[in-house]
Amino acid sequence: MARPRAVVLLSGGLDSATVLAIAVAGGFEAHALSVDYGQRHAAELDAARRVAHALGAASHRVATIDLGQFGGSALTDPTIAVPTDGPSAGIPVTYVPARNTLMLALALGWAEVLEARDLFVGVNAIDYSGYPDCRPAFVAAFEALANVATRAGVEGSRLRLHAPIIELDKAQIVKLGASLGVDYGLTVSCYQASPEGLACGRCEACRLRREGFARAGLPDPTRYAPPAP
Amino acid sequence: MARPRAVVLLSGGLDSATVLAIAVAGGFEAHALSVDYGQRHAAELDAARRVAHALGAASHRVATIDLGQFGGSALTDPTIAVPTDGPSAGIPVTYVPARNTLMLALALGWAEVLEARDLFVGVNAIDYSGYPDCRPAFVAAFEALANVATRAGVEGSRLRLHAPIIELDKAQIVKLGASLGVDYGLTVSCYQASPEGLACGRCEACRLRREGFARAGLPDPTRYAPPAP
Repeated sequence: MARPRAVVLLSGGLDSATVLAIAVAGGFEAHALSVDYGQRHAAELDAARRVAHALGAASHRVATIDLGQFGGSALTDPTIAVPTDGPSAGIPVTYVPARNTLMLALALGWAEVLEARDLFVGVNAIDYSGYPDCRPAFVAAFEALANVATRAGVEGSRLRLHAPIIELDKAQIVKLGASLGVDYGLTVSCYQASPEGLACGRCEACRLRREGFARAGLPDPTRYAPPAP
Repeated sequence: MARPRAVVLLSGGLDSATVLAIAVAGGFEAHALSVDYGQRHAAELDAARRVAHALGAASHRVATIDLGQFGGSALTDPTIAVPTDGPSAGIPVTYVPARNTLMLALALGWAEVLEARDLFVGVNAIDYSGYPDCRPAFVAAFEALANVATRAGVEGSRLRLHAPIIELDKAQIVKLGASLGVDYGLTVSCYQASPEGLACGRCEACRLRREGFARAGLPDPTRYAPPAP
């Protein structure tokens, strides 16, 4: 019997690689979607291609949207510095306006064409509690939208938005992914990775990732850039 | 006192031009957003520029997304013919998967950067009842999403998604727009307009538009292409 299809958002980072492994392990024919929204860390997209292949995705697409023209985030606006001095209060400047809404809308469109009923996203409410669009309330609201916005919903199918790591901390995520065979050496999480995918080791994403491996008692396979002189 | 800001989705067609006029008449500083999603009728985007200027939009941006790579719609997939033989049953093949979800997600992102609390969209439940993402249930679900997906929502502001023509028929829409000074000669609705913006006169969008002017008792300013020999 054919496996049910799913669309999995895949950034190339640690979280979404884990989610792809979960979808595949769950028996889905997983179609991976990466979105180039003008982010600085294009090395993530190269990582996404490697991860999709390594984990056996049925296909992988990269969609392009220019969010940079709207400004407003350190990840897309070169005039805003990426912070390297620890966690900040409130919503981080690395928040990209409506990013997850946009990426899920693309995933939803592709799911309609593929006749997939399942979407997977690697949002995480614990490490990223400052991002509005990483919370369970956001996931529930998008799933509700998906079921009225689409042909499948109108015709009575139920679309599901899976966020399987939303309540896990980084240590739990890397333990789970390691058990499913994820090679985290292929992934890039750093907000300002070099074009070769070397991590800065100083930004918030690097800090969370390193602590995750440490707390999980697993070796950190991240390739770090040499420190600036 | 400064006018409140709003983001208005502007396709360059009749419906969204009317909605822009409504937003401006309602006292908003209206920022118009057009989305190039790989549609065949690029003449609409030229029309959008003219309409935004004529109606006094505070700014106008064109965002680009490649939906064509997903296929599945006669508007973006050149292997699917645009029907010219009258209304079809069910969801039309001109439906673009998740189009309104995507365009509203872009509008939401820009609204966050502009600190706008109001979005306007020209969806219409009567003439386009076959499109899942033109129904009141879709509008309500997206508004609910917007209020959990964004910084403004988290910080307690209320975002509103206005769909002021959703219950109007085409005749009511053109009467309202004419009363607000919309020059419909600037707009292009045709699914397969020529590069110069000439309408085919035969597709479903042309049929609905022509009937609207006729029923409103207004002259039809549409520039039609000469019939094929």
